[in-house]
Amino acid sequence: MIFRASVLTLYPEMFPGHLGFSLAGKALERGQWSLQTVQIRDMAEDKHRSVDDTPAGGGAGMVLKPDILARAIDSLGQDSRPRLLMSPRGRPLTQSRVRELATGDGVVIVCGRFEGVDQRVIDARNLEEVSVGDYILSGGEPAALTLLDAVVRVLPGVMGNVASGLNESFEHGLLEHPQYTRPQVFEGREIPSVLTSGNHAEIEKWRLQQSLQLTAERRPDLLDDQAVTK
Amino acid sequence: MIFRASVLTLYPEMFPGHLGFSLAGKALERGQWSLQTVQIRDMAEDKHRSVDDTPAGGGAGMVLKPDILARAIDSLGQDSRPRLLMSPRGRPLTQSRVRELATGDGVVIVCGRFEGVDQRVIDARNLEEVSVGDYILSGGEPAALTLLDAVVRVLPGVMGNVASGLNESFEHGLLEHPQYTRPQVFEGREIPSVLTSGNHAEIEKWRLQQSLQLTAERRPDLLDDQAVTK
Repeated sequence: MIFRASVLTLYPEMFPGHLGFSLAGKALERGQWSLQTVQIRDMAEDKHRSVDDTPAGGGAGMVLKPDILARAIDSLGQDSRPRLLMSPRGRPLTQSRVRELATGDGVVIVCGRFEGVDQRVIDARNLEEVSVGDYILSGGEPAALTLLDAVVRVLPGVMGNVASGLNESFEHGLLEHPQYTRPQVFEGREIPSVLTSGNHAEIEKWRLQQSLQLTAERRPDLLDDQAVTK
Repeated sequence: MIFRASVLTLYPEMFPGHLGFSLAGKALERGQWSLQTVQIRDMAEDKHRSVDDTPAGGGAGMVLKPDILARAIDSLGQDSRPRLLMSPRGRPLTQSRVRELATGDGVVIVCGRFEGVDQRVIDARNLEEVSVGDYILSGGEPAALTLLDAVVRVLPGVMGNVASGLNESFEHGLLEHPQYTRPQVFEGREIPSVLTSGNHAEIEKWRLQQSLQLTAERRPDLLDDQAVTK
C-alpha cells in the first residue's frame, strides 16, 4: 500500500511544486507515494463561487467558511488518514511526528488562507492543527509542501542510502556536528586533525562533543526537552 | 530598490515553485521582488562536475565541497545582503527575523543537500545557519521557498490588506484566537454568542482570553519567552 497525500487547497497549481523534482519527484514517478489535490472552490454553490466571509465579531481579513470546507473534506469519502490543518496556531511539527505520519496510509492536508478557518469545521472534522514554524506564511500551501517533503523522505525505499537518514540533527535530539571534506586545506583552513587521524573512537568522541556544544549554544531548549523526557 | 533573492542550489528547477502563484507570484510579476538562481554544479571544474565528497573522519552520506560553494557565492560579486544557509542546525526562523530580512536589500540563500556543507565555507563566507523547523528535509530548497514566502508576504505593498497582517499568531507573541463566519449554525454548532453581541469591548476581551488559553495549552514556551524578554 502506498502513502497517499490529499491536499485541499485554493491553489492546486502550487502542487507538486518542488515535490516534482529530486528525491520526492522520483518517488512520485515510481509510485512510492501519490498526491491528489482538491480545489476547495469547487465546493462553493453560489454563482460567485465564494469560499470565505467576514469574521464574526469583526476584524480584518476573511474566514474560510465551514460548510464549504466540510464538503471538500467529505468529498474524499470514508477516510482513516489523519487530517491535518496547516496553521501557525498548531502544534510544532517534529521529526518524530514526521516518522509517525510516514508509517501510516497517508495524510489529508487542509491548506488555510486568509485570516483563518472557521473553528467549527476544525472541531467537527477533527482537524489536527500543525505548524511548521513560528512565522506567518501566505497560506497553508508552502507548509504542506514542506511537511510532505519531510514525510516522503523517510518513506520506506525512498532514500537511497538508508544510513544517512539516521545520524542527523534531531534524530538523536542533538544538532549535527560540523562536517568536512576534501580539500585538506581550504583558504588556509585545515580539516581538524582528529578527523584525519584514523582513530575512530576519538572521532566519535569529538563529534559528540561538538554536537553537544553546538546544541548548548544554539538550542539549549533541546537539551531541556531531553532532561524532561528522561 | 526592490528585494533581491539569490538562491544557490543544485535544483534551480524547484524555483520559483509555489512562489510563482498567488500573492508572491503576483508580486514577482509586478517586480516587487526578484528571484535569481545559481546552479552550484556550474562551479565544478572536473569532468564529472562533482560537487560533493565523502566526510572527513568517515560516516554515511556526502558533504558539499567548500571550494565549489565558495566559488558559487563569490560569483555574485560584492554583496552586502545577508547570506543564509538553510540547515536544521541553524537558529529557528522567527517572525521578527522575517520582518528584519524584509526591510533589507534582499538575501542570498544557500541550499544544502547531502549530509551537509563543509564547515570551513560556512565560517569563511559568514553563512548564517537558519532552520525553518525541527524536522529534516530532503534539502535546503523547501526551506528556502518557505522562508521566501514568509518574507515576500511582508514586503511593502505586497499584502493588499495591511491590517490583516498585524493581528496574527506571533505578531503579539500569542497564538491567534478562533475565528468564525457565516452560517450562524453549522451542523448544530453556533457561533459563540459574544461574537454576535455587537459589544466590541467584550469581543476583544473574549478573543484575548481565547488566545491566552490556546497559547497556554499548545505553546507554553511562547509565554515563557515573553516572561524572559520582559
